[in-house]
Amino acid sequence: MASSDKQNRPKARLAKGFRDVDANEIRGLKRMLRTIEGVYENYGFEPVEQPFIEYTEALGKFLPDQDRPNEGVFSFQDDDEQWLSLRYDLTAPLARYVAENQQFLPTPFRSYRQGWVFRNEKPGPGRYRQFMQFDADTVGSASPAADAEVCMMAADTMEALGIPRGQYVVKVNNRKILDGVMEAIGISGPNESGRRLIVLRAIDKLDRLGILGVEQLLGKGRKDESGDFTHGAGLNPEQIVRVSKYLALTRMRFFDDSLEVLKRADSVGETPPVRYSSGQTSFPSNAMFKRAWLDVVGDTSSGQQGIDELQKMDDLFTAAGYGTGRIYFDASVVRGLEYYTGPVFECELLMEAKDQDGKPMRFGSVGGGGRYDDLVARFTGQSVPATGFSIGVSRLYSALKLLGKTEDRESTAPVVVLVMDKERQGDYQKMVQQLRGNGIRAEMYVGTSGMKAQMKYADKRGSPLVVIQGGDEKAKGDVTLKDLALGSQLASSVESREEYASQRLAQVSVPEAELVSAVKKMLERK
Amino acid sequence: MASSDKQNRPKARLAKGFRDVDANEIRGLKRMLRTIEGVYENYGFEPVEQPFIEYTEALGKFLPDQDRPNEGVFSFQDDDEQWLSLRYDLTAPLARYVAENQQFLPTPFRSYRQGWVFRNEKPGPGRYRQFMQFDADTVGSASPAADAEVCMMAADTMEALGIPRGQYVVKVNNRKILDGVMEAIGISGPNESGRRLIVLRAIDKLDRLGILGVEQLLGKGRKDESGDFTHGAGLNPEQIVRVSKYLALTRMRFFDDSLEVLKRADSVGETPPVRYSSGQTSFPSNAMFKRAWLDVVGDTSSGQQGIDELQKMDDLFTAAGYGTGRIYFDASVVRGLEYYTGPVFECELLMEAKDQDGKPMRFGSVGGGGRYDDLVARFTGQSVPATGFSIGVSRLYSALKLLGKTEDRESTAPVVVLVMDKERQGDYQKMVQQLRGNGIRAEMYVGTSGMKAQMKYADKRGSPLVVIQGGDEKAKGDVTLKDLALGSQLASSVESREEYASQRLAQVSVPEAELVSAVKKMLERK
Repeated sequence: MASSDKQNRPKARLAKGFRDVDANEIRGLKRMLRTIEGVYENYGFEPVEQPFIEYTEALGKFLPDQDRPNEGVFSFQDDDEQWLSLRYDLTAPLARYVAENQQFLPTPFRSYRQGWVFRNEKPGPGRYRQFMQFDADTVGSASPAADAEVCMMAADTMEALGIPRGQYVVKVNNRKILDGVMEAIGISGPNESGRRLIVLRAIDKLDRLGILGVEQLLGKGRKDESGDFTHGAGLNPEQIVRVSKYLALTRMRFFDDSLEVLKRADSVGETPPVRYSSGQTSFPSNAMFKRAWLDVVGDTSSGQQGIDELQKMDDLFTAAGYGTGRIYFDASVVRGLEYYTGPVFECELLMEAKDQDGKPMRFGSVGGGGRYDDLVARFTGQSVPATGFSIGVSRLYSALKLLGKTEDRESTAPVVVLVMDKERQGDYQKMVQQLRGNGIRAEMYVGTSGMKAQMKYADKRGSPLVVIQGGDEKAKGDVTLKDLALGSQLASSVESREEYASQRLAQVSVPEAELVSAVKKMLERK
Repeated sequence: MASSDKQNRPKARLAKGFRDVDANEIRGLKRMLRTIEGVYENYGFEPVEQPFIEYTEALGKFLPDQDRPNEGVFSFQDDDEQWLSLRYDLTAPLARYVAENQQFLPTPFRSYRQGWVFRNEKPGPGRYRQFMQFDADTVGSASPAADAEVCMMAADTMEALGIPRGQYVVKVNNRKILDGVMEAIGISGPNESGRRLIVLRAIDKLDRLGILGVEQLLGKGRKDESGDFTHGAGLNPEQIVRVSKYLALTRMRFFDDSLEVLKRADSVGETPPVRYSSGQTSFPSNAMFKRAWLDVVGDTSSGQQGIDELQKMDDLFTAAGYGTGRIYFDASVVRGLEYYTGPVFECELLMEAKDQDGKPMRFGSVGGGGRYDDLVARFTGQSVPATGFSIGVSRLYSALKLLGKTEDRESTAPVVVLVMDKERQGDYQKMVQQLRGNGIRAEMYVGTSGMKAQMKYADKRGSPLVVIQGGDEKAKGDVTLKDLALGSQLASSVESREEYASQRLAQVSVPEAELVSAVKKMLERK
C-alpha cells in the first residue's frame, strides 16, 4: 500500500451530508424500532422489504432529465447501461412490489418496513442525505376504516414509546375537502393547477404565519420580516373569506359553546391559536358543526365525500376510545407530496424545543401520511386504493432523547481483565470465558501496552470494574477486583497524599474460585 | 398520473440482481442478527455504523478508471461533482472511520456492525448485488490474542445459533507462513508477485481439487473436466514438494501417531481427505509437529513469526477450552482479499448440501476474516494493526434454514374480526382494540368486500381464527369464533353433504363480554 507516499494518500473524511452512528444511538434506535414494530405487529401488519436500488423508471417521480435522471435522487447506470436509483422513500418501491406481486398478496395487503432512504440534496444542519423511515401501509382498501386504523396505530406507537397522552396529537384532514373548497371558489379547472398549489402552500403555513399571514398569501402576497416578497394566489376577498372560514373550522372545536363558534367562524381574523387539551373531542361531529362544514364545501361532490369519510373515521375513533385528546381534525394539514388523494395525517409532538434562533417552539412533526390511490396505477393502469403512514425515525429519536426516553438501561460496559503478565494470557482468557459463560459482559485486554495504558483503556470504555491478577495475587491464588467508578470518586474527594489509601477502599481481593460471584456482587452494588 | 396511457407505463419489475424479502425471512433474519449481536456484546464489542455512501477515494481499492470508477462498485457524482460510491463491504468504511476519529477511540477499538453492501457485478443464481454482512473488528492491537478472540467468538456464535459442535469448524491459517513457504522456495521478490498469486489460488483450491490437482496448478497447469486448461505457476518439482509438504500439515493432525504423520508428510500424494472429528485437538503443538512446521518455512523470519503467532493463538484456545473439536489449523485457508497480513480464518459448516448439479457437498463457508494491518495506513501513513471477522448473513441464514433453525415460533398470524354489517364497523373496531389491548394480534377486515372474500382473506393471512358477529349474534349479545385450521381439516375429511354440520364443530358462540378469554382459549389449544 502507498502508505509512504503522502501525496497519494486519500483524506479520511465522511462524505458531505452523511454521518457515522455511535453505540448509544444504535442501541437506542434499535429499542425504539423494536417498540414500533411491536405495535405494528399487534395491529396485524406484516413486514416486507424491498431492495435499496430500483430501476429509475420504476421509482418514477424524478425523471425531469432523461440523460441524467439525477435530480433529488442518486442515480447511476449499471454494466448493462440501465439506469438505477437509490430509493428516496419506502413507498415508491412498495408500489412497484405490489404491482409486480398483486396476485400472490392478500387483499387488503397490510405491511410495514423500516430502512434507510437517500436524497441527492444539499445537506444542512440536522439534514442528512441518508435517513431512516418506518412505514406502514394498507394497500387494496378504499375504506376510511383503513385510514382510521393507521391513525390509531400512530397514536398507540407514541404511547408505547413513552410519550404521554397530551404531548402528541395525530392531526387529520382530507384532501377531498380541500378540493371541494377550491371547487366551491371556482379554481378547480386544469388551468388553475398553479394557483391551487399556491393556495395549498399558503394553508400549510397556518401554524407559522397565523390566519392573517395566510390571508395575505391567498390574496396579493406577503412581505416577510426580511423584506422578501412572496407572490400570492391572487384570490378575491370573497374567495379568501371562504378559505378562511374553512381554516376556522379547525379552531372551532376549542370552544365549549358551539353557537359561539359558528358566530366566530364569520370573523376568522380573531380566532385564537390552536391549543390542544385532553378534554376535547377530536371531530366536530354534531349537526351544527356539520352545517358549518357543508357551508364551506358547498354542493361539491368531492367536498361532501371528504366530509363523509372524515365522519366515518371519527365514528371509529370514538368507538375504539380514541375520541378525546389523541386524534384531531386540522384543516391546515396538507402534506407536501402531490400523490395524496384522500385523508391525510400528521403526527405532531407538542413538547417544547428550540428553533434555529434558540426561540422556544413546538417540537413538531415526527411522521405523516395519507391515502394515495394512484401510485400502483402508474404500473398497471388500474387504480389500487392505498393508505399509509411514515415515521421520520431520526426526528422521532431526537424527540425521545429530549424527553429522556432513550437511556440505555440494559447494556453495561464490559468488565476488563488486565494482562499483568503476557506469558499468562491463557489464564486471563480463562477468567474472561468464565465471566462470559455466566452472562457477564467481559473482555481480556488484547492490546500490547502496559498497566497504565490498560487502566486508561478500561476507563475510556466506561468499565464498571477491572480484574487484576499479578504475581503476588497468583502466588496467593487470589484475584483483585477494582471498582473504577468508586475509585475515581474517592480519588477526587481526598488529598493526593491519601490517594493510595483511598484506592485500597475501591478494591477487594478474593480467592480465584470466587471470581464470578464477587464480580456479580460488585456489579449489583451499582 | 398517466395511468390511462399504456405506452408510457413503466414495467413493475425488480432491478436485476436484487430481491424483495418476505415476512418469514425478515423475522428469521432479525432473530439471527439479535443472537449474533448478543454474542458480540458479551465479548465486549460495541456497535458503530458508517453510512452507505463514502467518497470513492476514501473507499479505495476500486479505482482503475479515473473517469468512471465503477468497476465492481456502484459509483456516481453528487451535485458538487464529487465521486461517491456505495460501500462494497463494511471494512473499508470502518478504516475511514478509525483514521478520522482515532484520537477519540479507545485502543484497542473493538466494534461490530451489520448492514447491506453492494456490488456492481453480474448477478447469478443465489448471487445478488445487495447482500448483508455482519462484521466484528479489533483495531489497534497487534496481539495474536485479538485474533484468537475473534475465532472463539465465531465458534460461540455458531453454537448460539443452534449449530451443534462438530457441524461447524473455524479454520485458521497465517499468511506469514504462506509468505515463509514462498520465500523458502525462492519466489519472494517483487518480480514474483504474479506467480505468488497463482500459488495462493492453487492452494485455495485444495478442498475442491485434492492435492494432485493443486500440484498440477503449482507446476505446468491443469486441464479440467470440460477440457479447459488453466496455466500453472511453473514451479519445479522440488518447489512443488515443499508446498505439498506444507499442505500436508493440515492433514497430519488427523492421525493418532505423530511419527506416522511425519513419515506421511514425505509422501503427500497419499494423504486422505480432511475429516473433522470432535476428539481431535486443533493445533499440532507438540515438539515433533513443530519440527515439521519449521521444516517447511525454513529459516525465513516471516514463516517463523507466523508459526509463533499461531502457537500463541493455540495456547489461548486451549486455555479457554476451545482446543478440541472447534478451531482447526488449515494450511489451505488463503482468503481472497489482498490486504490480509497475518492470521486468516474461515468458518465452515460441515452439514451436507447440494451443489449446482444436485450432488451432495459440504455446505461450506459462512464467514471469514483475518488480520489487515495496512488498511488504516492508507489514510494516515501509520500502520494500525487490525483484525476482524465478517459473516455472510444470507449464506448463514440459508444454512440455518437447512438445519430447521429458523422457524418462527413467536409470531402468530392475526385474529381477523369480520365486518358483517358495514354500519357497525365501530363495534368491530372496539372488539379488535380489546384483543390488542390484551396482547392478541388482531385486525378488523378493512377491505370493502363481502363475507366470502373476507373468509378468503383470513385464510390467505393464515389466521388462526375469525370473530363473527352478524345480526343474529348481535341480537343475542353473542360473538362466534371460528377455528380456521380445524374448519378446513374437517371440511377435507367429510362428505360434502355433511360439510355444514362439520363446520359447526369448528366454531363456538360465546357472550360478547367473554370475547377475549374465549379467543385466548382457542389460541392456546393450538
